Amino acid sequence: MNSESTNLTWGGVDCQELAEEFGTPLYVYDTSIIKARCRELRETFLERWPGSKVRYAGKAFLTRSMSKLIQSEGLGLDVVSLGELYTALSAGFPPEEIEMNGNAKSREEISLAVRSGVGRIIVDHPDELKTIEFFAREFNRVQKIFIRVAPGVDAHTHAYISTGQTGSKFGFPLEISEGSMLRYAVEYAARSEYLDLRGIHFHVGSQLFDTQDYLKSLEKIIELIKDLKEQLNFTTHELNLGGGFGAVINPSVPHVPSEKFTEPMMKLLRASCKDFGLEVPAAIIEPGRWIISEAGITIYRVENIKELPKVTYIAVDGGMADNPRYALYQAEYEAVAVKAPNAPAYDRDGGTKVSVVGKCCESGDILIENARLPWLEAGDLIALYNSGAYTFSMSSTYNKLQRPAVVFVEDGEARLVVERQSLEDLLRGDRG
Amino acid sequence: MNSESTNLTWGGVDCQELAEEFGTPLYVYDTSIIKARCRELRETFLERWPGSKVRYAGKAFLTRSMSKLIQSEGLGLDVVSLGELYTALSAGFPPEEIEMNGNAKSREEISLAVRSGVGRIIVDHPDELKTIEFFAREFNRVQKIFIRVAPGVDAHTHAYISTGQTGSKFGFPLEISEGSMLRYAVEYAARSEYLDLRGIHFHVGSQLFDTQDYLKSLEKIIELIKDLKEQLNFTTHELNLGGGFGAVINPSVPHVPSEKFTEPMMKLLRASCKDFGLEVPAAIIEPGRWIISEAGITIYRVENIKELPKVTYIAVDGGMADNPRYALYQAEYEAVAVKAPNAPAYDRDGGTKVSVVGKCCESGDILIENARLPWLEAGDLIALYNSGAYTFSMSSTYNKLQRPAVVFVEDGEARLVVERQSLEDLLRGDRG
Repeated sequence: MNSESTNLTWGGVDCQELAEEFGTPLYVYDTSIIKARCRELRETFLERWPGSKVRYAGKAFLTRSMSKLIQSEGLGLDVVSLGELYTALSAGFPPEEIEMNGNAKSREEISLAVRSGVGRIIVDHPDELKTIEFFAREFNRVQKIFIRVAPGVDAHTHAYISTGQTGSKFGFPLEISEGSMLRYAVEYAARSEYLDLRGIHFHVGSQLFDTQDYLKSLEKIIELIKDLKEQLNFTTHELNLGGGFGAVINPSVPHVPSEKFTEPMMKLLRASCKDFGLEVPAAIIEPGRWIISEAGITIYRVENIKELPKVTYIAVDGGMADNPRYALYQAEYEAVAVKAPNAPAYDRDGGTKVSVVGKCCESGDILIENARLPWLEAGDLIALYNSGAYTFSMSSTYNKLQRPAVVFVEDGEARLVVERQSLEDLLRGDRG
Repeated sequence: MNSESTNLTWGGVDCQELAEEFGTPLYVYDTSIIKARCRELRETFLERWPGSKVRYAGKAFLTRSMSKLIQSEGLGLDVVSLGELYTALSAGFPPEEIEMNGNAKSREEISLAVRSGVGRIIVDHPDELKTIEFFAREFNRVQKIFIRVAPGVDAHTHAYISTGQTGSKFGFPLEISEGSMLRYAVEYAARSEYLDLRGIHFHVGSQLFDTQDYLKSLEKIIELIKDLKEQLNFTTHELNLGGGFGAVINPSVPHVPSEKFTEPMMKLLRASCKDFGLEVPAAIIEPGRWIISEAGITIYRVENIKELPKVTYIAVDGGMADNPRYALYQAEYEAVAVKAPNAPAYDRDGGTKVSVVGKCCESGDILIENARLPWLEAGDLIALYNSGAYTFSMSSTYNKLQRPAVVFVEDGEARLVVERQSLEDLLRGDRG
């Protein structure tokens, strides 16, 4: 490598060298950024609010190495399936620091969760209570549980009847009148010697930058906590505020401090509980994207460039198979040229649009619809910034493309944590 | 099993028994339907039009068993990646009956295609010509190629300048003036002793039911063929009409005969070539979905049912991980209860909407937004009709859900062709 290289580096490692060593497409995570996010959560949340917990939402990105990193950083883990739970347990994650979410848990999932001693199960449907109780009895445990409620989003009506009942498959409606799902569940848990209902879970949404919806939702939840106390004599010892904290688009944009979300919520929670004479529940948060997105980049090789009269297509060696987020949500990304990360965009005649597209046989296989990139040639590398969340975890083998490798980088050192799929891997289980 | 069972059967096999034997979710293909579609293509296309070819678009669904079935039915294969080519070759598919498509082929893909003796490579970018030539020289072959063009869709302007240049990452603009990509490619191929340019490829779109866009596009292509002959003295020996023939939503709807698409196109092609004094090129089609979609169902187990005031959610044990097509395109499916496939829909008070949702932690994880299903309980099975295309092939392990098994059924017999992923499979390549 030229020592004068001005190539993009990530975690102190030259991205050109990463591509040469590990191939492309390549998911690359700077673990120092992950650690910095975890440290920030410890300092501004865990150490500030007694009894509080952070449980990383593994669905954003989970490997055994990530599980170990989260553990060593002192956070807990939120899993949503047998596979995620298995991953965490196989990496030695302490089960009591794991919570299990999911709107449609199978018996197998609940069985493993109870048997392995998972700290909390977030109940999303009344039917789960009997299943959890069944396995808790079988494994002679008292299972700590939460009930997930749907806070709704329309604040222009009474807290209990706005939405929450509509539009979401997750959680219980806030309603606690006679015959309601929530009342049934609270009373069921109170009678059971195998269930310990610790509190309430809610989740507002994803990739949020504003605190307004959090606070609106929390107000409804505090009303619920009050009514649960007054009407059912149920004390909410713990309150799970969910996740959804937003991640920014590139490293030049300052990341949004987690305090922006947690401070107003915690202040509202404490003040309201004081006003209502309620015990202040211990708070739990479940950030996923916020911890991992900005730590990750994806490196692609340009296969060809097609200059058409109104649009230039930069086609790369990956696409919707390794990152379906544009296809699913028109998610926005920014790319840079690895050979010249600070170069200005090449201005094509008449301001021709430049799109970065994938290699899947599908018109919707786009990574960036309007990219700002310097002059590039086939063979050049580009990197998609802040693509660490929901890329590896959502990846498919569509068009029988092999899943890229995952590399952790820090202080100039690179470590392969997930191997690139082989052609044989694609046919594993195919009986011919 | 009760011999009086009125359970849904597929390929003569009770779907309840399939679920019990192979687990759920489960992809089930009735191979007699696949064979019937292939037979129809032989009778109404291959046998009617001299020199014609059908190449199944493997991206819709490809396993080694599917590759063998397509071969035994006398069709060719269209592959779009190293992985698809590897799958076909490992199943013994004759390479000369394979064509390779793709907008961003890698050197590795082109190398394997040329080396293995693939029948046709569909060139999608001028850069490919040199790469194909390089490997053809290396492996001492003359590689037959096509050039893919973008016919565009706006027929209200001149054939060459409407679209085609815009909106699609695929193919060459129809323009053949001096300095154009297409003229360059045709002239390059004419000079090369390693390239044999057989003709032109175009593709109109997907899931089409109307012939209008096919015919509009074909008119432009015939103009192109005429101009290529007149201006560049290039004879189009073969014409690939692409795929895109629509598949219907459930078995009670008659499938759309392939003749509906092929007959008008072939008649227009022959008549126009006669008018222009051109050789009639041999025609190739690339149906994928049309062959496989209606043969496939997906069986799910209901995990729970959540009745809310305005919507009832039927949550199943799969979802966007095994079928992302609602999440991606709001694709429509119909489901039936396996225990009562002909039962009328249960009419909830006030016409409550019934949605079938998946188990992924994502609001967009929907399979059917408005389902018509009888009264169901947790544990019941449902089947999604005509879900054989782009489900297995687009599946991911999002939320670390294991990829379902694939079963072929026919005449009352079931055969496991792809095993359900194990938990260990999810962590394959994870270095811990």
